Amino acid sequence: MTTSTALLLADLTGVAVFAASGASAAVVKRLDLFGVVFVGFVAALGGGILRDLVIDEVPPLAFADWRYVTTAAVTAGAVFWLHPQLARLRTCVLVLDAAGLGLFTVTGTLKALDAQVPAVGACLVGMLTAIGGGLARDLLTAEIPVVLRSEIYAVAALVGAVLVTVLEAFGHADATGLTVAAAFVFLVRLVALRRRWSVPVPT
Amino acid sequence: MTTSTALLLADLTGVAVFAASGASAAVVKRLDLFGVVFVGFVAALGGGILRDLVIDEVPPLAFADWRYVTTAAVTAGAVFWLHPQLARLRTCVLVLDAAGLGLFTVTGTLKALDAQVPAVGACLVGMLTAIGGGLARDLLTAEIPVVLRSEIYAVAALVGAVLVTVLEAFGHADATGLTVAAAFVFLVRLVALRRRWSVPVPT
Amino acid sequence: MTTSTALLLADLTGVAVFAASGASAAVVKRLDLFGVVFVGFVAALGGGILRDLVIDEVPPLAFADWRYVTTAAVTAGAVFWLHPQLARLRTCVLVLDAAGLGLFTVTGTLKALDAQVPAVGACLVGMLTAIGGGLARDLLTAEIPVVLRSEIYAVAALVGAVLVTVLEAFGHADATGLTVAAAFVFLVRLVALRRRWSVPVPT
Repeated sequence: MTTSTALLLADLTGVAVFAASGASAAVVKRLDLFGVVFVGFVAALGGGILRDLVIDEVPPLAFADWRYVTTAAVTAGAVFWLHPQLARLRTCVLVLDAAGLGLFTVTGTLKALDAQVPAVGACLVGMLTAIGGGLARDLLTAEIPVVLRSEIYAVAALVGAVLVTVLEAFGHADATGLTVAAAFVFLVRLVALRRRWSVPVPT
Repeated sequence: MTTSTALLLADLTGVAVFAASGASAAVVKRLDLFGVVFVGFVAALGGGILRDLVIDEVPPLAFADWRYVTTAAVTAGAVFWLHPQLARLRTCVLVLDAAGLGLFTVTGTLKALDAQVPAVGACLVGMLTAIGGGLARDLLTAEIPVVLRSEIYAVAALVGAVLVTVLEAFGHADATGLTVAAAFVFLVRLVALRRRWSVPVPT
Repeated sequence: MTTSTALLLADLTGVAVFAASGASAAVVKRLDLFGVVFVGFVAALGGGILRDLVIDEVPPLAFADWRYVTTAAVTAGAVFWLHPQLARLRTCVLVLDAAGLGLFTVTGTLKALDAQVPAVGACLVGMLTAIGGGLARDLLTAEIPVVLRSEIYAVAALVGAVLVTVLEAFGHADATGLTVAAAFVFLVRLVALRRRWSVPVPT
């Protein structure tokens, strides 16, 4: 398996996981089949669309490569029909979501650096790629975005994006380095979930 | 009347209809005159702005051609002052909205294909052009977008976009073919309204 | 001090003021530290990001120049920790917000004209630069945007944008002319606040 195949598989895994999280939120709000698939699409691909618009990669990958939208739509459709059985898989979904967070942080930051976005901006783009879909999901379902309210989520992505930027600056953004960065985001998120770590709230 | 004049008239008709739907929603929420005009502008032109950003047609038509924003603003202003008389025109507005859906689906899909977006992506862009303004209207007025909740609306647009893409692939995307596609979306939407067809909701 | 230094200082002042307004809204909603900084970032830079996407200035300044995001983040962080002391500064914040409105209107309109956007479109882009961040702030905190509901706010920006466009057309868009335009928006907004001027609401 070549590196680009590995990257594509990683990316599509992230798409499927985020589509499932969006579709689950839509099912809870009693949206119809189209609504469930659409919120799944936005949750999976919204962050990447924003990223591609910002780095002028048009049309965005979500529109240019049919495998992305197909993965998102099939996953969201499956959640629509299978959601009663999925209820007991909640832990599994949280773990997969943490994996998606790590993968999207790494690919988003890398693409921004490749597009000559300066370091600070690239970290922002990487973080927005990872959290943008979830933000859009919550806006579409009329919730204050959960990522702004509690828990270590976006902060894990931001730290991961800084890590990728530092690796790139020192010439270590190879498969090993990037895997370490993705795994770091994944683990921070999992430990934060288990230990109920959170970001301070106003006094 | 040349083809491009016909297309422009069709496009501006769609803009006026969607501006009226946005302005009506804003009047219900008791927004002020500026708010009514602004929500009308977003409902009429938001889908096209998103389309133009995605296909890298910048500045988007809504900013590049003054006739678009003028049409939207005048229509929304008229709704602000005339809305008590418009209440009894509800059926008329629904019919015009269905016409706008058909027109925007066809022009959005065509522009995406012209900009070399692959087939699946072009169908998505066409559908988003048609439903994007309504989505933004509902977000601005703090509602879960109605297009995600019930009725055959986005699905009619998606099927119409697929139809345009197939016509284009077989070299039949001429005035007749495109008119048929727009009429198809229009009729599906009208029949769905009358028969109360809807998309399944989660069990 | 050169003109471009003066413009940068003016721009960063606007960023700081809008970041403070976004962070304050987030504190009221009890978002966590990350949420407060993020809403501050969006309120300060969302309008400019939209402007840069529309005029194809990519990556947007918010990602290309680290001073913008740093100013926004530091200001929002300061609001998070100092907000009890800020409560009595409400008048001061309103005055600064009016100043930011004037500054962003002028810089947004100018950049659109420089990017060859036609006059009507440039006025829209200038107004959206000034009000876009506040719109996004209210969407993220699940409120109907205040700018659509009452008071002279967006209208002051729109009139200021028209003024800049007229000055540019007659070759008077120099430091004096632009300062007058910004001051005009600032004063209209302040007088509207004090006199409780508002835009008509539907009858």
